[in-house]
Amino acid sequence: MSLKLYELVGTDAARPFSPYCWRTRMALAHKGLSAQSLPWRFTEKSAIAPHGSEKVPVLLHHDRPVVDSWTIATYLEDNFPDRPSLFGGEGGRAMARMVNAFGDIVIVGGIFPLIVADIPNNLAEADAAYFRKSREARFGGKSLEQVMAGRDSGVVAFRKSLEVMRQTLKKQPYLSGSTPNYADYIVFGGFQWARVVSPFRLLEADDPIYAWREKLLDAFDGMARTSPGHEV
Amino acid sequence: MSLKLYELVGTDAARPFSPYCWRTRMALAHKGLSAQSLPWRFTEKSAIAPHGSEKVPVLLHHDRPVVDSWTIATYLEDNFPDRPSLFGGEGGRAMARMVNAFGDIVIVGGIFPLIVADIPNNLAEADAAYFRKSREARFGGKSLEQVMAGRDSGVVAFRKSLEVMRQTLKKQPYLSGSTPNYADYIVFGGFQWARVVSPFRLLEADDPIYAWREKLLDAFDGMARTSPGHEV
Repeated sequence: MSLKLYELVGTDAARPFSPYCWRTRMALAHKGLSAQSLPWRFTEKSAIAPHGSEKVPVLLHHDRPVVDSWTIATYLEDNFPDRPSLFGGEGGRAMARMVNAFGDIVIVGGIFPLIVADIPNNLAEADAAYFRKSREARFGGKSLEQVMAGRDSGVVAFRKSLEVMRQTLKKQPYLSGSTPNYADYIVFGGFQWARVVSPFRLLEADDPIYAWREKLLDAFDGMARTSPGHEV
Repeated sequence: MSLKLYELVGTDAARPFSPYCWRTRMALAHKGLSAQSLPWRFTEKSAIAPHGSEKVPVLLHHDRPVVDSWTIATYLEDNFPDRPSLFGGEGGRAMARMVNAFGDIVIVGGIFPLIVADIPNNLAEADAAYFRKSREARFGGKSLEQVMAGRDSGVVAFRKSLEVMRQTLKKQPYLSGSTPNYADYIVFGGFQWARVVSPFRLLEADDPIYAWREKLLDAFDGMARTSPGHEV
């Protein structure tokens, strides 16, 4: 196969969970492309180092590496121009940059403390130890459990932080308008990450964002919904 | 002139200050269109009621009213398609919806408590009284001065709330890519509103958002910078 994708997994090689890898998974599906999945774990740095990266996703196209989810999306857009567009034109590509920052900061950054101590449950021992040590350092030495202890109130603030997205979805079905594109996949990647690794309930059922997530879980023949995860 | 724009002003009819009217002003300039300015004040509801609106901007095109800044932007895009695009294609138009929500919630909503008690200084007595009464009701009866009392700490939180935008501007010169379009004008409108009515310093000089604002102040031969306002 001409496309291969290194994807973050834990004990279950068929359970990819990285929010960034899910952005790429959805982008590939949108383009009607299939890639061979190359399961990758936190401690397998040496497997991707030859491709010039310490992190996934790493896409190999005819064995040429493309690194970083944003770079991969623009690469797919430029190299498969006859397939459905990921951005809907140059204006959309430029504005998707801000959606990408929203996805990184508000979505991934906002969800992280709400699910962080659930993540090691999905990892083999060596990966769990690596994850705990590296992430606890990021939180100034707090244990993952301490970080997550306030999540019942933290999730209320998280939901509030989604207001910009919520107001948008009251005006149109997707962030990208009447049909989804990469802007939606950026944000959805974070929700799918949470769904795979944690049973914690992020959204209330009457939230327009909940309905939007449902539609993306169903997209591409239910690709995200049928991937192993928790009920959300 | 075939285009006329009702714009919010106070005592000085040549000092338009509404963030939404500034979105439209910049959009018109981007399209290379000029509109006759029809100064409008808070208490002049009867002047625009026949056009089906209680708020400005109201654009008249051959005396046909177009109401609401977003609707006006899409109207200009559709009716002047041979002029420079405000969105850069359908993807950009759709994603600008989320930028519009960001502009409303994070920018206008975030700036409002930081400058609210400065606004009546720009208004004649009847308008100032209307503004104070209607806005104090929105803040649960707090005086405008009470709302604004915490602005020295409030502005720190406001700057933090701009992180999504800041990270975007570290990657590209404008929210719309290499050149500005309506996404930028949406957000800029809020900053220009603040600049016109208040001397309060919203941004630090080393913030990438400060540099971005400078460029938009200079756009269209310095249209926004030469409009009366405070040093920012």
